[in-house]
Amino acid sequence: MAKKRKFSRRLPKIRGRRSHQSKKAGSAPGTLHHVGEKRVEEVSITIHDYSEDHIESIEITEIEECRPYLENPSKTWISVKGLHDIEKLQSIWAYFNLHPLVQEDILNTSQRPKVEEYEDNIFFVLRMMHYTKEEPVILESEQISIVLGQNYVLSFQESDMPHFSPVLERLKVVGTRLRRFGPDYLTYAIIDNIVDYYFGVLNELGDRLEETEEILIDDPGQDTLHHIHGLRREAIFFRKSVWPLRDVINSVIRDDTKFVDESIKVYLRDVYDHMVQIIDNVDNYRDMILGMHDMYMSQVSNKMNEVMKVLTIIATIFIPITFIAGVYGMNFDPQASPYNMPELSWYWGYPAAWASMIIVAIIMVIYFKRKDWL
Amino acid sequence: MAKKRKFSRRLPKIRGRRSHQSKKAGSAPGTLHHVGEKRVEEVSITIHDYSEDHIESIEITEIEECRPYLENPSKTWISVKGLHDIEKLQSIWAYFNLHPLVQEDILNTSQRPKVEEYEDNIFFVLRMMHYTKEEPVILESEQISIVLGQNYVLSFQESDMPHFSPVLERLKVVGTRLRRFGPDYLTYAIIDNIVDYYFGVLNELGDRLEETEEILIDDPGQDTLHHIHGLRREAIFFRKSVWPLRDVINSVIRDDTKFVDESIKVYLRDVYDHMVQIIDNVDNYRDMILGMHDMYMSQVSNKMNEVMKVLTIIATIFIPITFIAGVYGMNFDPQASPYNMPELSWYWGYPAAWASMIIVAIIMVIYFKRKDWL
Amino acid sequence: MAKKRKFSRRLPKIRGRRSHQSKKAGSAPGTLHHVGEKRVEEVSITIHDYSEDHIESIEITEIEECRPYLENPSKTWISVKGLHDIEKLQSIWAYFNLHPLVQEDILNTSQRPKVEEYEDNIFFVLRMMHYTKEEPVILESEQISIVLGQNYVLSFQESDMPHFSPVLERLKVVGTRLRRFGPDYLTYAIIDNIVDYYFGVLNELGDRLEETEEILIDDPGQDTLHHIHGLRREAIFFRKSVWPLRDVINSVIRDDTKFVDESIKVYLRDVYDHMVQIIDNVDNYRDMILGMHDMYMSQVSNKMNEVMKVLTIIATIFIPITFIAGVYGMNFDPQASPYNMPELSWYWGYPAAWASMIIVAIIMVIYFKRKDWL
Amino acid sequence: MAKKRKFSRRLPKIRGRRSHQSKKAGSAPGTLHHVGEKRVEEVSITIHDYSEDHIESIEITEIEECRPYLENPSKTWISVKGLHDIEKLQSIWAYFNLHPLVQEDILNTSQRPKVEEYEDNIFFVLRMMHYTKEEPVILESEQISIVLGQNYVLSFQESDMPHFSPVLERLKVVGTRLRRFGPDYLTYAIIDNIVDYYFGVLNELGDRLEETEEILIDDPGQDTLHHIHGLRREAIFFRKSVWPLRDVINSVIRDDTKFVDESIKVYLRDVYDHMVQIIDNVDNYRDMILGMHDMYMSQVSNKMNEVMKVLTIIATIFIPITFIAGVYGMNFDPQASPYNMPELSWYWGYPAAWASMIIVAIIMVIYFKRKDWL
Amino acid sequence: MAKKRKFSRRLPKIRGRRSHQSKKAGSAPGTLHHVGEKRVEEVSITIHDYSEDHIESIEITEIEECRPYLENPSKTWISVKGLHDIEKLQSIWAYFNLHPLVQEDILNTSQRPKVEEYEDNIFFVLRMMHYTKEEPVILESEQISIVLGQNYVLSFQESDMPHFSPVLERLKVVGTRLRRFGPDYLTYAIIDNIVDYYFGVLNELGDRLEETEEILIDDPGQDTLHHIHGLRREAIFFRKSVWPLRDVINSVIRDDTKFVDESIKVYLRDVYDHMVQIIDNVDNYRDMILGMHDMYMSQVSNKMNEVMKVLTIIATIFIPITFIAGVYGMNFDPQASPYNMPELSWYWGYPAAWASMIIVAIIMVIYFKRKDWL
Ligand SMILES: [Mg+2]
Ligand SMILES: [Mg+2]
Ligand SMILES: [Mg+2]
Ligand SMILES: [Mg+2]
Ligand SMILES: [Mg+2]
Ligand SMILES: [Mg+2]
Ligand SMILES: [Mg+2]
Ligand SMILES: [Mg+2]
Ligand SMILES: [Mg+2]
Ligand SMILES: [Mg+2]
Ligand SMILES: [Mg+2]
Ligand SMILES: [Mg+2]
Ligand SMILES: [Mg+2]
Ligand SMILES: [Mg+2]
Ligand SMILES: [Mg+2]
Ligand SMILES: [Mg+2]
Ligand SMILES: [Mg+2]
Ligand SMILES: [Mg+2]
Ligand SMILES: [Mg+2]
Ligand SMILES: [Mg+2]
Ligand SMILES: [Mg+2]
Ligand SMILES: [Mg+2]
Ligand SMILES: [Mg+2]
Ligand SMILES: [Mg+2]
Ligand SMILES: [Mg+2]
Ligand SMILES: [Mg+2]
Ligand SMILES: [Mg+2]
Ligand SMILES: [Mg+2]
Ligand SMILES: [Mg+2]
Ligand SMILES: [Mg+2]
Ligand SMILES: [Mg+2]
Repeated sequence: MAKKRKFSRRLPKIRGRRSHQSKKAGSAPGTLHHVGEKRVEEVSITIHDYSEDHIESIEITEIEECRPYLENPSKTWISVKGLHDIEKLQSIWAYFNLHPLVQEDILNTSQRPKVEEYEDNIFFVLRMMHYTKEEPVILESEQISIVLGQNYVLSFQESDMPHFSPVLERLKVVGTRLRRFGPDYLTYAIIDNIVDYYFGVLNELGDRLEETEEILIDDPGQDTLHHIHGLRREAIFFRKSVWPLRDVINSVIRDDTKFVDESIKVYLRDVYDHMVQIIDNVDNYRDMILGMHDMYMSQVSNKMNEVMKVLTIIATIFIPITFIAGVYGMNFDPQASPYNMPELSWYWGYPAAWASMIIVAIIMVIYFKRKDWL
Repeated sequence: MAKKRKFSRRLPKIRGRRSHQSKKAGSAPGTLHHVGEKRVEEVSITIHDYSEDHIESIEITEIEECRPYLENPSKTWISVKGLHDIEKLQSIWAYFNLHPLVQEDILNTSQRPKVEEYEDNIFFVLRMMHYTKEEPVILESEQISIVLGQNYVLSFQESDMPHFSPVLERLKVVGTRLRRFGPDYLTYAIIDNIVDYYFGVLNELGDRLEETEEILIDDPGQDTLHHIHGLRREAIFFRKSVWPLRDVINSVIRDDTKFVDESIKVYLRDVYDHMVQIIDNVDNYRDMILGMHDMYMSQVSNKMNEVMKVLTIIATIFIPITFIAGVYGMNFDPQASPYNMPELSWYWGYPAAWASMIIVAIIMVIYFKRKDWL
Repeated sequence: MAKKRKFSRRLPKIRGRRSHQSKKAGSAPGTLHHVGEKRVEEVSITIHDYSEDHIESIEITEIEECRPYLENPSKTWISVKGLHDIEKLQSIWAYFNLHPLVQEDILNTSQRPKVEEYEDNIFFVLRMMHYTKEEPVILESEQISIVLGQNYVLSFQESDMPHFSPVLERLKVVGTRLRRFGPDYLTYAIIDNIVDYYFGVLNELGDRLEETEEILIDDPGQDTLHHIHGLRREAIFFRKSVWPLRDVINSVIRDDTKFVDESIKVYLRDVYDHMVQIIDNVDNYRDMILGMHDMYMSQVSNKMNEVMKVLTIIATIFIPITFIAGVYGMNFDPQASPYNMPELSWYWGYPAAWASMIIVAIIMVIYFKRKDWL
Repeated sequence: MAKKRKFSRRLPKIRGRRSHQSKKAGSAPGTLHHVGEKRVEEVSITIHDYSEDHIESIEITEIEECRPYLENPSKTWISVKGLHDIEKLQSIWAYFNLHPLVQEDILNTSQRPKVEEYEDNIFFVLRMMHYTKEEPVILESEQISIVLGQNYVLSFQESDMPHFSPVLERLKVVGTRLRRFGPDYLTYAIIDNIVDYYFGVLNELGDRLEETEEILIDDPGQDTLHHIHGLRREAIFFRKSVWPLRDVINSVIRDDTKFVDESIKVYLRDVYDHMVQIIDNVDNYRDMILGMHDMYMSQVSNKMNEVMKVLTIIATIFIPITFIAGVYGMNFDPQASPYNMPELSWYWGYPAAWASMIIVAIIMVIYFKRKDWL
Repeated sequence: MAKKRKFSRRLPKIRGRRSHQSKKAGSAPGTLHHVGEKRVEEVSITIHDYSEDHIESIEITEIEECRPYLENPSKTWISVKGLHDIEKLQSIWAYFNLHPLVQEDILNTSQRPKVEEYEDNIFFVLRMMHYTKEEPVILESEQISIVLGQNYVLSFQESDMPHFSPVLERLKVVGTRLRRFGPDYLTYAIIDNIVDYYFGVLNELGDRLEETEEILIDDPGQDTLHHIHGLRREAIFFRKSVWPLRDVINSVIRDDTKFVDESIKVYLRDVYDHMVQIIDNVDNYRDMILGMHDMYMSQVSNKMNEVMKVLTIIATIFIPITFIAGVYGMNFDPQASPYNMPELSWYWGYPAAWASMIIVAIIMVIYFKRKDWL
């Protein structure tokens, strides 16, 4: 019982699920307004400038401050968190000379994952997905936009959550590939990090699926149905959100671009394998959820059968013998005629009535035994 | 309850859903009659002649009046609203030398979106879709035909609704890309505008889907079923109507045509991304609607189970004890035999009858508790 | 009620649905016997000889009579109706030097639509489909075989129905494309004519689908189920019969053949568009029919729920109070003991019994109100 | 009733359905043991040596006896029936120098249809399928292996059934294509013969499907369910068994092989068309079987509804009036109080009781009429 | 009954089903930790050095010990069992100079089957699957990693089970292809061995499927539902696990690699055929399991119908006649009025009551007979 409590009656929200694109109906491509909810107080810009033998991380307020870092030969990661301050973002975009459509894509946070090459850079739209840690656990989705230039990575995220701290940790270690290789390897590491989060979502989905499956076998209730439906919704949403990334990675591997070195592609092939594995698994889950729904329906029908059997057994045993009792409760006047209920005055009348009632009941019980209902 | 009221018992109409093509069975290709309902009183022709530094909008009655605008170097948008006046349309087609099959396609307003290149122009069939603003809200579908020539855009629409006023507004602003670029960019802007409407439909579908999902959890009724069925119908219709546009845009991007400049293709790629996103979402919705239907069925079965349990509990408790009462309502004559209902004259007879009835009832209640039915 | 009458209890027959190919198991390819039902009394041969400035239609009995028409420079349409007189057909085939496999295909009238090029001609298998006009309306399917040579069209049909009279009507008009262009355009016109019939079937299916959908909302019965099942069957059959034609047309457009002029291909592309639209629509219909079936099932379950609620409410109100009445119908002897049914002699005994029964009933009604069952 | 008898309670066996491959787990490829059931007493070898002007059929015991026939210029068909005598088979394989994998494929009789070219020959795995003629009718599946060399056809079959007697009959007729053309045409004729058997299976499936559909409309029972399930199983099995043949034929048509002459390919295209038609039809059947299952479920629900309505109507009419009768069966003592059941002594008491009971019953009947339940 | 016992109430576990990849979220590619459960006590290394005329098998503890075997011209199979001792594995990897991503893939034992070519070797991820032999039978899945170099095969497996003993047995026999051919043939033999295990799983699945189908026809219960669900789960898991192997084999056949000789490809094509057959069969099984679920649901509904019919028949026969008995159990005072229950004093009163009750019962029985419910 305590187990069943943990499923709330409400379907869990999925943050970032709906497409907000329609708000700009008819507006010019490149007209800039942030589409999505505001998730952070202030837009922050952090610079991580690194080469094989040094690393420096500073927070800046004006984009101009990053000029020295971009002009020196070391590699630079400019990480922007928050998307609601259009003016600040525009100063960044102007500085990096981003195409108006790229600008629009960064703001419009319900994009599908995609990659597009421009003259000065290659632009990735990615999607971070994870379950929140606090109750109620909800599936959160956030757009990550990456601009990869010759010697820099410019990343944008909606919230200020430290999604990429594992990458940053490794960046701080001397001698890692992250330090030795170029910004294309950093971009790979970010994508790989996102895909690791997908495995986390997959595991959570898998855990809940197995848990629900067990409840389904033991003691399914109305809550189980809501839970199955919620799982189905989340699996559908997760699949839709992540599968385009497979093609994104594949097209980077296949097409030649000056921004991604050949030597990096073996790593991209590895993350491509992961994506295929994730999609395989989530398809798997969807099939299993369908199976669980079918099973739930069968369980409900089985339960109904049981209820009906109890009613039918009790009713069909007692209705006939109640009739017999009813007959001898009639008040026909024995004095008016010898045919009027002579049984009532028989010596063995009452025992005979009981006997006939017991016989009827036994016949019924035998019949039910034969039918395998008892 | 008030909430449920908002779903009408009738399924909402979908305007433009059915194919009217059959009315011309066996007639020659190019035989001209408008296929579709008349949606506007009079066929109107409006000219928007524009270049980087001027714009002029006039309404004309004879197509000959547009000759000066077409011959000057500025770009010209000839917008025709209404399709029922064949003669007037024929004068326009003759003027622009349109192929008979193009003429037929313009009139036959149940076409799938498509693109076809001819010698003098490239011809698009597009489909505007939106929910009406007045009650009852219905999904309206209208064919938009575009003929793109070297220096003009010729557009046809069934109704006189100002679908493209956002484009027109931007056209009036000096310095926009719309003013600087050629008629191919205008065509792009019109397609982009239509796709923005699709996002509107998607959002409305999404809102209704979420609303229905909530009712489904709280208190589903017969109306909910009609609503789910209506959603399913509209999602099917919407998907069918919009997905060919993806391939249309893709074929323009992929194939070389002199009517669309290379520089425009980056914008077409953007609207292509939107189309992929829309199709992803509507597929998503269809899966969720199927899930909602499955859930509805489960809910109905659950409710039935509950009803049956109440009946079974009441009936199986009272039927046996009513039988006991019936037994002691029999009229066997105690005087005729010592075996005839001696219980009736026992000192504790009546209390014993009550006791047996109460014990039977308690056994039943314990049994139901054990079964977890109470 | 009157409405429901129109659906017959029997599933409607579909003529031409079954594959009769097996009758010739093991026989040589090219062994000739007509496979299909005999649909016309006598095999007739009609010649339409036409050029831009003349047209002549005559019925002939011997195929030799068509020699002058084939040898003159005008175009010739030889229309054969009926397939049961093998000898007559063989004389035609010998005259036109048809390949044995073509002969077999003409006779075996359950072919899929296909096209095959031979040295002297190009051979089309097409499928006419239409609903009969008399009651009971059945979906009729007939194979049309077309042999297109350099200056002639040779057509075969199973029945003598005037399927192509619209084409013939236009052929009689001077100056039409049909008269100006070659036999390839005539072949196109015949295919277009067949596709127009498909739109007719589609409309009929659509009308019945909408009608059934309305009945489904208003007052579904057992007949509705049969009707949905019939629709499903006909949609499946229609789709299977027509979709190969799309590929047939496409392969003619794509492949170069000397029998079809380049200038004709724009028209074939038009009929190709129609085929895509038809297939889109019938897929649509199939999805909607599945939705209707799901809805029917839900309606049936809802109805059952309603029936069960009525039973449960009546039974659970009256069973307990009938028990109370039963108790005071017991005959325990008040004289035997002060505990034996003293209530019977109470001053307010009978009113108290009524009161308790009414209270029980009211409690039940309140309970049902709470459950929202009343 | 008699009609329903013909469906047995047991699901019909499908011979050759299961994959027996696992018995050789881990053994070397080319290790030879017959996998499948022994279907014939003794392995027989028959030689049909033929050219345009002669044919000779003899049964041999040693493969060496076929040397003169293979060395003369006439074409030779060596037909081997039975696969359990490995030694005899090995002598044949050695004689024809077959690849170990071919040997293994011939013995392992649960292969998918396939074609493979070797240096000396081209190897076909085919699958004969037919319903047995005796009761109970079961779907029988048998592997046919064909080795086609430059001037011979070597065929293997599991049983000694005369599957190819129609081919043999035609081979005996002077002047047929079979006699004029090479062993490639004989191979084609064998394949065509197998495909003719498929049409037979298709027709049998179709007949049973229509029969079941009719029973489904008239009077479905538990047997009907078993029959639908059996049909589904057989359609699944049949489809899986035959569809690879389409690709086999296509790859022979498409790829150039010295063993199949160009002139034969027009015939292979014909049998390819048949295969497409068969697959189309069986897909069709599967969809219809799913529809029949859905319909069966709806019928069962409808029947339940009817049963419940009868119970509800009878119970809700009689339970309230039985209560009234119960009330006046109570034994409250009228002497103890004026309030104790004064009705019993009213002049119109009994008629009034009847009247109230009849009124209640009539109200119920009206209510049910309104609900359309009567 | 005994038969049904064998299905346990719990769903059987599937070992190796879940993806453990998430444990390394954000860690560097190539960071090494074993992902999966520890299945063996100690990591063992066995060397099988063989050429056409000798074979030598020794167990070593340090990888350095294999140097002489690798440097001599004979072929060498180094088989590593157990993956939990990272240090030992690293010494092996260092010795063979394996790419960090290969190292990671070996440890991460929930990979999909794949093949990847590196400069020095070609790397295969394979998946062994089999049912355990002890009760409860569970489907076990284990990752097999193969590194194929110019003159060696390096294999890794999680457990120390003798999966490849059949290969080893054949390796010990002089003159086999295994001895004559290179390490590429050994790799093929290992893959073929794994595929043989798949046939074993397929057969087990098929046996259980047929068994369940029989129970389904005879006497389905709640256990049957669990069993169907378990089958569905296992079929889904099995399919997902094995189908990538088909593409792996195909890509080795298609792509040229120096590590696999052309002469080996005919054998790979054979195992490719097996994989296609396995996938065909498991798809088949999935369809049949869906069919079994549909059938189960229908059976449950049929049973419910039967239960309801019994209740309805008994209740509708006895409720009306119990009412009649109730009427004549009323206590209206015959002395108070001539209209008060005069029937009670009629001469034929009691027999008439019985007669009316019997007539009502007979009418009901006739009604049920007509409805075909009896
Ligand atoms: Mg599925
Ligand atoms: Mg599915
Ligand atoms: Mg599905
Ligand atoms: Mg499914
Ligand atoms: Mg479903
Ligand atoms: Mg399903
Ligand atoms: Mg489904
Ligand atoms: Mg279903
Ligand atoms: Mg789906
Ligand atoms: Mg679906
Ligand atoms: Mg579904
Ligand atoms: Mg589905
Ligand atoms: Mg479905
Ligand atoms: Mg479903
Ligand atoms: Mg569907
Ligand atoms: Mg479907
Ligand atoms: Mg469906
Ligand atoms: Mg479906
Ligand atoms: Mg369905
Ligand atoms: Mg379906
Ligand atoms: Mg289907
Ligand atoms: Mg289906
Ligand atoms: Mg299905
Ligand atoms: Mg279905
Ligand atoms: Mg399926
Ligand atoms: Mg399915
Ligand atoms: Mg299914
Ligand atoms: Mg399915
Ligand atoms: Mg299903
Ligand atoms: Mg299904
Ligand atoms: Mg289904």
